[in-house]
Amino acid sequence: MTLTQAAIREAGAMLDLTWADGRKARFDAIWLRDNALDPETRAPGNGQRLITILDLPDDVLLDAASVSPSGYLNLTFAPEGKSVGFPSAWLAQRIYDRPAPSGQGWTDPAIERWDAGLQPRVPRADLAEITHDRAALGDWLAAVRRYGFAVLGGVPTTSGAVCDVAQAFAYVRETNYGRWFDVRAEVNPSNLAYTNLGLQAHTDNPYRDPVPTLQLLACLENSVEGGESLVVDGFKAVERLQAEAPVQFDLLTRHCARFDYAGSKGVRLRAKRPFIELGPDGELIAVRFNNRSAAAFVDVPQPLMRPFYDAYRRFAELIEDPALAVTFKLAPGELFIVDNTRVLHARKSFASSGSRWLQGCYADKDGLLSTLAAIEAESGSVAS
Amino acid sequence: MTLTQAAIREAGAMLDLTWADGRKARFDAIWLRDNALDPETRAPGNGQRLITILDLPDDVLLDAASVSPSGYLNLTFAPEGKSVGFPSAWLAQRIYDRPAPSGQGWTDPAIERWDAGLQPRVPRADLAEITHDRAALGDWLAAVRRYGFAVLGGVPTTSGAVCDVAQAFAYVRETNYGRWFDVRAEVNPSNLAYTNLGLQAHTDNPYRDPVPTLQLLACLENSVEGGESLVVDGFKAVERLQAEAPVQFDLLTRHCARFDYAGSKGVRLRAKRPFIELGPDGELIAVRFNNRSAAAFVDVPQPLMRPFYDAYRRFAELIEDPALAVTFKLAPGELFIVDNTRVLHARKSFASSGSRWLQGCYADKDGLLSTLAAIEAESGSVAS
Repeated sequence: MTLTQAAIREAGAMLDLTWADGRKARFDAIWLRDNALDPETRAPGNGQRLITILDLPDDVLLDAASVSPSGYLNLTFAPEGKSVGFPSAWLAQRIYDRPAPSGQGWTDPAIERWDAGLQPRVPRADLAEITHDRAALGDWLAAVRRYGFAVLGGVPTTSGAVCDVAQAFAYVRETNYGRWFDVRAEVNPSNLAYTNLGLQAHTDNPYRDPVPTLQLLACLENSVEGGESLVVDGFKAVERLQAEAPVQFDLLTRHCARFDYAGSKGVRLRAKRPFIELGPDGELIAVRFNNRSAAAFVDVPQPLMRPFYDAYRRFAELIEDPALAVTFKLAPGELFIVDNTRVLHARKSFASSGSRWLQGCYADKDGLLSTLAAIEAESGSVAS
Repeated sequence: MTLTQAAIREAGAMLDLTWADGRKARFDAIWLRDNALDPETRAPGNGQRLITILDLPDDVLLDAASVSPSGYLNLTFAPEGKSVGFPSAWLAQRIYDRPAPSGQGWTDPAIERWDAGLQPRVPRADLAEITHDRAALGDWLAAVRRYGFAVLGGVPTTSGAVCDVAQAFAYVRETNYGRWFDVRAEVNPSNLAYTNLGLQAHTDNPYRDPVPTLQLLACLENSVEGGESLVVDGFKAVERLQAEAPVQFDLLTRHCARFDYAGSKGVRLRAKRPFIELGPDGELIAVRFNNRSAAAFVDVPQPLMRPFYDAYRRFAELIEDPALAVTFKLAPGELFIVDNTRVLHARKSFASSGSRWLQGCYADKDGLLSTLAAIEAESGSVAS
């Protein structure tokens, strides 16, 4: 992707660029000036911008533009008389002169939606491997980015080990449940998770805003009958809902649900967010779904409440469809991680004889993605 | 708010309710059944729902409805033949048969937008007071909910004390900067915050997703000339932008900006979110603004990039308007807290003689609001 031509247009307000492969793109003078890479604009050490938008002249224009034989772009801006340069590849990676994403519910190419067909190839690694081999860690984290979940074996069955795993690539998010929490049947449970009941596929803590973006659940003991874990790609369920019933998809994106939790003394968490969250450009951002903590919905206009419930029911049916679920039974020393903004998890009920002891913790997906991006940059597997 | 009448409509699909003050509202049968308060529907201890939407008959209808002399509503549902009851007040608090919020950028009544006029009445408390008096803690937290910031005095000037304050009502959010971080001039700063430069009003870490929703900044030493702190209500700036230039407001809500940070080894954080975030119902949810970490915008269609920059500039001008800013200079033993989804903070540059040492930490607003809701429920100041 080497630049070959640069032509100033619109009296300096715009630049037409052409690359060796024939690709063309327009760039605005103000955008180029704001993103200048010189050491007066960007701090050389940490890369942060030293100027504000108000430091730039409102009438910034291109005065001169040329491409060197190696494809380096040299620009001079009026009225500052400032000269700056851009590498070909840097610009090629940031072309914004392209069609906007069309429609609602699209996802990034790094995301692959899946169904029960993923069962034979559940993403999996061993803790020893990802601890000692940075590329293996990258592969495992990339699976979490792609599929929204992964399994890890070889985890010590010591209390709190789940936090050590999270801290290898992200930061633990402490909540009212603690830095980590025990998941086992209790006599007076503050949460139905702490019983031997089955739990419908759900995302955790939708009554929190923001929700925890990652959850890790590690198994310390599991000698009970039942208690299998299921995961369901919420984004796949959304895709099916959108295909089968676009009006129902719209209802669940356009109106907020409510969630709450007040199971412990001093805790009264509440959130108002849609079941299916889209960005302003229609990107599918998050799914929230949890029958236990769904509160009374009060943000749906009355004439739409029954249709909203029909859509909620249909979405629940899709989430419960075995054709979408991947199932596994955690053994002691295994954990799974889910992207809690996308993948729902469930557990089957279990017998009260034997013992089942999991420990969970929450962590931040942005930390995971940051570690992954750093590994990819080190290995040169993606442009930095 | 005592119920006086209940009338079944639409062959049992709907209920018309009338309260003693003349208020009327319709409720859908499916909504009433889903929100039943009986111990088979809701776990008595923790209040969580025991059933899923799929446990409810699709053809749920009201079979009988009556109001007791005290205003208690008794209902029987077909086809289950199930009888449940609702208190008058519980229903009155959850009326959804009302006009939907109209327009974009509205906020909850608990939020009060402010400008420089707030200067003489900056919300403030002392640590000793909020530690020993739960009502005083409630008042201080309510100020954070209302204004998006508050000052606290009497904080020990010992390292890490800022976390102790956060933990009194919320949970610390650990990041790559640690559980807490020092803010003082450094030789090779990983972030421009760690210099003596002035910092434009900003929200912290917009390159994180989700962003930290609370920030606390505590002062341990401050003998420099300059270094004053400013806070600006981002929601007020949005209000002014919307009033003066609705098209520019729309541009900043409809298109995503990008933010990134790669100032430390192993860290490559990136986020794609709008400067002004609205919920699906137009509620103003969050502001993100930070010149240092704004990345190249690539999600704005090329023909709109120049207008987008004009809107960005106008928004920055409003944020920099002294008519919007509240200013104070932190003394050792003082801290301020900001709602980082709403209130921007800035600092003026400071002289290199003398010492200025702050410590910051992030925490979760949902935890703060949960504590506040619990205090309000204890004191009966709001309906529980």
